[in-house]
Amino acid sequence: MNAEELFRNIQRKKSYLCVGLDTDYKKIPRMLLDTEYPIFEFNKHIIDATEDLVVAYKPNIAFYESMGAAGYMSLEMTITYIRKTYPEIFIIADAKRGDIGNTSRKYANAYFKTLDCDAITLSPYMGQDSISPFLESEGRWAVLLGLTSNEGSNDFQQLEMKSGKRLFEQVITTSSGWGTVNNIMYVVGATRAEALKDIRKLIPEHFLLVPGVGSQGGSLYDVAEFGMNDRCGLLVNASRSIIYADGTNKFEQAARQEASLIQKQMEVTLKERNLI
Amino acid sequence: MNAEELFRNIQRKKSYLCVGLDTDYKKIPRMLLDTEYPIFEFNKHIIDATEDLVVAYKPNIAFYESMGAAGYMSLEMTITYIRKTYPEIFIIADAKRGDIGNTSRKYANAYFKTLDCDAITLSPYMGQDSISPFLESEGRWAVLLGLTSNEGSNDFQQLEMKSGKRLFEQVITTSSGWGTVNNIMYVVGATRAEALKDIRKLIPEHFLLVPGVGSQGGSLYDVAEFGMNDRCGLLVNASRSIIYADGTNKFEQAARQEASLIQKQMEVTLKERNLI
Repeated sequence: MNAEELFRNIQRKKSYLCVGLDTDYKKIPRMLLDTEYPIFEFNKHIIDATEDLVVAYKPNIAFYESMGAAGYMSLEMTITYIRKTYPEIFIIADAKRGDIGNTSRKYANAYFKTLDCDAITLSPYMGQDSISPFLESEGRWAVLLGLTSNEGSNDFQQLEMKSGKRLFEQVITTSSGWGTVNNIMYVVGATRAEALKDIRKLIPEHFLLVPGVGSQGGSLYDVAEFGMNDRCGLLVNASRSIIYADGTNKFEQAARQEASLIQKQMEVTLKERNLI
Repeated sequence: MNAEELFRNIQRKKSYLCVGLDTDYKKIPRMLLDTEYPIFEFNKHIIDATEDLVVAYKPNIAFYESMGAAGYMSLEMTITYIRKTYPEIFIIADAKRGDIGNTSRKYANAYFKTLDCDAITLSPYMGQDSISPFLESEGRWAVLLGLTSNEGSNDFQQLEMKSGKRLFEQVITTSSGWGTVNNIMYVVGATRAEALKDIRKLIPEHFLLVPGVGSQGGSLYDVAEFGMNDRCGLLVNASRSIIYADGTNKFEQAARQEASLIQKQMEVTLKERNLI
């Protein structure tokens, strides 16, 4: 999928919502625990309940990896289910990978071939040759960490370089030359909405993946104000606030209600800018 | 395992060799392809042939992840085999993970509980709260990327900060305060041996994991000269040059021979400094 196709999906659904599938065995409704693949069952229910309100799902790989081979099976089943049932949905593996070239190539295989994801989140610390193996397949995306939503982003990302740029600005400026607006996007935390203005000066056209709305406290209107461009240019993620909106057998309706609230706000922000 | 125990293993084996298990289905001897778990079988043979010459094994997770659930099973079987058969061996998951706190906690579970590894490699870009979940279990280690062996390390790691430090020096200085010499070590590429001298000024006592000897061209003697401290303080990794020394049914003997050559050089460097 390229940027234009992603924008058309956003227009059609009046939504730039990405739902994070941070699926935790300890947090899913008890009634699902008797099924053979409870993690997959939970995801399937959440996906069926929300798919018309979202443009992307983002499985958080750590949650599957912590469950061993059974977790991996659930991840694979989830991705296969989305692909077959809702082929227009954009799938982001939230993996934060990045290694020397021959190893990054293996991760690219893992997420773009073994698993049929559209995109993967990557850490930029190891530089260009750690990222380029993810930029070789048409329609697949590298989502680089720019400025993250956690407190630890102050430790290095916000530090000033000799050049006058902050590290995250340097990372964004340099790495945006490694690919195009059709295969690179950036993670920018919603808890740093004011930084979106600075980032938009550096990369006016790139898509941004914005976590931190919902449980982490970021404001959707601020994100739209500072981050939206003329092809929307935003995927805003919410995870826990949607998928764990309710822990009973009404979890699907509750998840849908939460997703719908956000989608309606998104529709307003898109209309205000005449994008739909 | 703490730093003192790791040093005692190094003294006993007269070796600070770590063998990287970057096991690639396409590169293992054909005769193994008929077994039920060829990747595990290959690893088991390599381990049995080299265990008395090494102090650590380092499975490169990308290689297993790219093979899906079967790859995960092979990884699990490999780690379980090492743990049961050679309990004194240090196991490093080469995973380059790192995410917001609740997600890093899942990765810590994945590698320290679901899989019984001693250590995991981590990318520092997201700061302290992305690393601290790995520092909470006694005897388990976070191995942070400092200065890597690839060309891309010039892109950001070597850039000068406003403080006058280069980014990798800033990362090492700041992060060394997050833990102790018993739970943090750093990745420093052997292709940057001259930088080891600068790094030793910052962290004289920490263990360093040094990849890049062998296929990547780094010199063991340079690494020992600039990086060794009074508890050795080094784990030097070689992967492809050992495990793929020979592609026929003599691969075990060839791997042992390569590992033995390095171990003998290591013995010399340890003796020169009166550490054995």
